[in-house]
Amino acid sequence: MFQTPFMRPTRSPREVFDWAVTQAEECDRAGFTEYWIGEHATMTYESIPNPELVIAAAARGTDNIKLCPGAHLLPYHHPGTLAVQVSWLTHVTRGRYILGIGAGAYPSDAAIRGLSDLSENHRMTIEALEIMQRVWKAEPFHFEGEYWKAGYPEPVDGHEWRDIRPYGGKVDIAMAGLSPNSPTLQFAGRNGYLPLSVYAGEAAISNHWETYEKAATEAGLTVDRSDLHVVRDVLVAETDSEARRLAVEGGMGQAWLNYLLPVYKQFGLLQAMLPDHDVNEVDVDTLLDHVWIVGSPDTVAEKLAAIRERTGGWGTTMVYGHDYTENPEPWNRSLELLTSEVAPKLQEA
Amino acid sequence: MFQTPFMRPTRSPREVFDWAVTQAEECDRAGFTEYWIGEHATMTYESIPNPELVIAAAARGTDNIKLCPGAHLLPYHHPGTLAVQVSWLTHVTRGRYILGIGAGAYPSDAAIRGLSDLSENHRMTIEALEIMQRVWKAEPFHFEGEYWKAGYPEPVDGHEWRDIRPYGGKVDIAMAGLSPNSPTLQFAGRNGYLPLSVYAGEAAISNHWETYEKAATEAGLTVDRSDLHVVRDVLVAETDSEARRLAVEGGMGQAWLNYLLPVYKQFGLLQAMLPDHDVNEVDVDTLLDHVWIVGSPDTVAEKLAAIRERTGGWGTTMVYGHDYTENPEPWNRSLELLTSEVAPKLQEA
Repeated sequence: MFQTPFMRPTRSPREVFDWAVTQAEECDRAGFTEYWIGEHATMTYESIPNPELVIAAAARGTDNIKLCPGAHLLPYHHPGTLAVQVSWLTHVTRGRYILGIGAGAYPSDAAIRGLSDLSENHRMTIEALEIMQRVWKAEPFHFEGEYWKAGYPEPVDGHEWRDIRPYGGKVDIAMAGLSPNSPTLQFAGRNGYLPLSVYAGEAAISNHWETYEKAATEAGLTVDRSDLHVVRDVLVAETDSEARRLAVEGGMGQAWLNYLLPVYKQFGLLQAMLPDHDVNEVDVDTLLDHVWIVGSPDTVAEKLAAIRERTGGWGTTMVYGHDYTENPEPWNRSLELLTSEVAPKLQEA
Repeated sequence: MFQTPFMRPTRSPREVFDWAVTQAEECDRAGFTEYWIGEHATMTYESIPNPELVIAAAARGTDNIKLCPGAHLLPYHHPGTLAVQVSWLTHVTRGRYILGIGAGAYPSDAAIRGLSDLSENHRMTIEALEIMQRVWKAEPFHFEGEYWKAGYPEPVDGHEWRDIRPYGGKVDIAMAGLSPNSPTLQFAGRNGYLPLSVYAGEAAISNHWETYEKAATEAGLTVDRSDLHVVRDVLVAETDSEARRLAVEGGMGQAWLNYLLPVYKQFGLLQAMLPDHDVNEVDVDTLLDHVWIVGSPDTVAEKLAAIRERTGGWGTTMVYGHDYTENPEPWNRSLELLTSEVAPKLQEA
């Protein structure tokens, strides 16, 4: 699950927090393998400022699921501070952790850090990552970069420092791409980080994989298509009509009609999602039939298998979390149906 | 409780985390009013890198206790990022939050942030606090200071930003002092922040209060002695001998003999704690009789009442958390006895 979170802006921080923590527990019970949590300082619809707070709160009540910042925006933290916290959480979760990283794309989030344009964020991200990787070695160094100073202390007689190396010796890293020929996915490929393909239409899936694989191959790395994560809106119920009703009347419809559709239109992303449609005539039926993957277990498995066929496939299907706080049962049932019925059908297909 | 935490360096991050979270729950059940959690990146004995992680994990399992960073070290975070997270946690805890702030005193923690001496930390703290206070107003600004840039975004047509003002409109702030005539407590007094007197001997309590009160009065603020928090090592059991045994054989003795006593000696702090003793002859009996407050409910109440009498008193008694992970029952019983038996006796006295 990718808990961005698409919660209604009227939800209080406590409601957002409770939902994010209990959804991690639900996903763990349902057998999901990964739970990703977004990070944004200023957004009304993506309203968790630090995924670590949810990860810490979910660590003790979950057993198998990986808890993953999706993504920590590296320009907005001191990299030494973040490296130590991330490493600690890899231990707290006993290795159930993948670090999603990003450069930050929203000007309002950048404004909180006094950055009036985003042109430097990519260089900041690279410097931050370099610092974090060095801190995780827990060997003395002192670094003065373009944006930050950082280091690890020299030994002092009789004092040892805490071993701040991550669980298992390394931190698994992932990056998400949205645009065609995504520079982010090229960077991920060159460095062997896991690729996440955020929904941007069906053609984007193949493009994201090819972009990633090409960069990896050029860097001498061998990557596997099963590493690819693809994010979609999915809702499963006993019948197609029930699933469609729950999608339209619940958080999925609410988030799309009030937030995502206007934003995707504004930034010209909708045409790529729906190349055969007039974007000015997109309505909830278009979403139900061509964007969301909604229906009975048979329908959802068939749709996913068909997309897999057309695009070349991927390893991990990520579903967007949505705001079903007022009626969680059918949403949680959808999560169970995904793992208990849809996944086996997909594996057979 | 002040959970620094004094956990044995051999404890894993998960053990430290579990103990910190469950102790918050125990303290809440026992009727404690506040739970403070330290922040250090590199220490083996004070081994929580970010108190927010414990606060988030304890927020849902506690009802009344305040959850407090003690302290966030402001030079080590981007103040805009920290301000947004702190504000969010004031909502997540529904106002059960006091923000302890500090400048950082350990060179090894500073080294992680590339700071090779601590001389600038005070100025960094003041700038960070100024930024945080402005962010909490959630009104557009852009600030470029000596150490950081920060701001709050201008409105953009059709988009509103998240309301990042704290719960109840303001964040309660506290600062801890240790040294005589503590500049930190002067700063707290001038700004009306709550004063925490870390244990540095009995004379320090009066000095800390007078230092704080004088600064407050000069700034035109009226402060109340009941605001003063005093941190001590306390352990209560049914009998004096049982309490003394639990202190010596458990985490309290372990932390003092292996960590605190050597550190206090090294930095010349022990003489102030024990002005009538030869510091080279301090042993566990000295600690039991003159530093720790250990015994039956009657004994502990009498000792606290006597200290109150000699020093002029304070409002909130904070007890250091200790590592009783292998045998938590008598330690948790001590917490219960403190609120159920010692506190009423003290109020009567």
